[in-house]
Amino acid sequence: MINLETFSSSLPARVRIVEVGPRDGLQNEAATVSVADRINLIERLAKCGLTTIEAGSFVSPNWIPQMAESETVFAGLQREPGVSYTALTPNLKGFKRALSAGVDEIAVFSAASETFSQRNTNCSIAQSLTRFEEVFIAAQQHNIPVRGYVSCVLACPYEGDVAPEKVASLTQTLLQMGCYEVSLGDTIGVGSPLKVARLLDKCLQQALPQQLAVHFHNTYGQALANILTALQMGISTLDSSVAGLGGCPYAVGASGNAATEDVVYQLQGMGIETGIDLQELIAVSHWISNTLGHPPRSQLALATQPRTDRDEQQP
Amino acid sequence: MINLETFSSSLPARVRIVEVGPRDGLQNEAATVSVADRINLIERLAKCGLTTIEAGSFVSPNWIPQMAESETVFAGLQREPGVSYTALTPNLKGFKRALSAGVDEIAVFSAASETFSQRNTNCSIAQSLTRFEEVFIAAQQHNIPVRGYVSCVLACPYEGDVAPEKVASLTQTLLQMGCYEVSLGDTIGVGSPLKVARLLDKCLQQALPQQLAVHFHNTYGQALANILTALQMGISTLDSSVAGLGGCPYAVGASGNAATEDVVYQLQGMGIETGIDLQELIAVSHWISNTLGHPPRSQLALATQPRTDRDEQQP
Repeated sequence: MINLETFSSSLPARVRIVEVGPRDGLQNEAATVSVADRINLIERLAKCGLTTIEAGSFVSPNWIPQMAESETVFAGLQREPGVSYTALTPNLKGFKRALSAGVDEIAVFSAASETFSQRNTNCSIAQSLTRFEEVFIAAQQHNIPVRGYVSCVLACPYEGDVAPEKVASLTQTLLQMGCYEVSLGDTIGVGSPLKVARLLDKCLQQALPQQLAVHFHNTYGQALANILTALQMGISTLDSSVAGLGGCPYAVGASGNAATEDVVYQLQGMGIETGIDLQELIAVSHWISNTLGHPPRSQLALATQPRTDRDEQQP
Repeated sequence: MINLETFSSSLPARVRIVEVGPRDGLQNEAATVSVADRINLIERLAKCGLTTIEAGSFVSPNWIPQMAESETVFAGLQREPGVSYTALTPNLKGFKRALSAGVDEIAVFSAASETFSQRNTNCSIAQSLTRFEEVFIAAQQHNIPVRGYVSCVLACPYEGDVAPEKVASLTQTLLQMGCYEVSLGDTIGVGSPLKVARLLDKCLQQALPQQLAVHFHNTYGQALANILTALQMGISTLDSSVAGLGGCPYAVGASGNAATEDVVYQLQGMGIETGIDLQELIAVSHWISNTLGHPPRSQLALATQPRTDRDEQQP
């Protein structure tokens, strides 16, 4: 049993949210959104106060049609000062495209499961790290910060449970290669709080809390409890996606990423600073969900429908 | 920051779930379910391993038509040994009906907000306690345990924030009057973890952890994080509702109670014993949601559709 003092003092004063909706979110939606709407989404999110926004992905459009024309998206952006617009770059070719597009930060993507790595990126974990080497060198030359993603940190859809030691070791490697931060992703959303605590315990033996972020999916409803656990264990960078954008291809009918507005509600309710305008964010959530043609996958958007919707429903 | 050892040792080994779907859940659904289906629901939940099931309410059917014929429900039940079938009894008349129906336990319902008490039960908090006195006397005579509900423990739809001291004082009174347990209800689901911790801190100055239960709504997506907080602070009795049955009349489009299957998933994932068969529970969730004509309000049911549904969708 812990008391109020222990509970309260375990929480950070401020949290940085990495908004992944325009990339990780849209990439996993069935519908493809126009370039104009992708730009609109990113600009509106920046106006909400989000300071790190995953804005695109420089991969082959044959792989991920939802992320085609990321150059056009970056070229069309009205940028807000103080906001970092980031992109995924799987290899040097992608990095060069990202650099030309004017990204502020890049990300590389690895997995803690060998089978997932093979099936998702067609190479082993070791091969993916080798492939990243030239990306890190180029990024350093151009002074572009690199974020690392590790997927399947708690379980893999093919291999089942993943050992925390494996994740901690890969995290250490990515930091040594030059990542300023590693985001630990529960790709299939199966985690629950004690598993998150066990994972972070191992990772914090290899990394400082400020070098780690967590990336939860709400597939089984556990995202916010897992986030609370991460906060208590010293993590203060959270990935989330407006409207819970993004599905999980490995679970039928399941929701996607932790919804940014639900996360912000939790943080604000605990007096944790985020710098985010929640009402504006809810409006963005409704707009992008309408654009995609499905209801928002966030409790907050469902509970706080915009006045116009409400008036229509309750005449 | 807390470490794994502190996190892990704060959790209970076993949790008792009070299933409120057949009463609190169905009572707040738009559709009215037949007596046969109410009986079927209760019997199936007992077969899942739930040991305390709120099975009905002995109030005027003019107030709550969904709970009409609770006598018939109790009379028709095939009871499982070791399961407590409970009912809400607002007054002596209700208690007598409940007693004749053969309930194992009764519950009385109060609110921590004066305005909510007036509007919901048409009397002040003090008047409701006076009204309960004869119920407690009668229950004691017949050796029937009494559970107390306190609603609006974090906020009231009319008054806003509710002071934890007010809840703690009412809890103490209910325990002194004879409740063996008081369930603290965040009726409008606005709570977030630190508020829950502050509330429990005050209540635990007046009550033992085993005299308290928590009752969260998932209106703003916070139910499971709030439950984690309660577990960490020593609470090991949780109210929840299969399929998240029950709306929240004070929030548009919002979901209802914490969904039992999502709660059980969290607990099982942390190695906490519940005695509940999760797969059976998910099947019940789908069945009752189909009966009500809407999708389940639980992430687990959405993510794990029964094979028949899945086959239809992915031919």
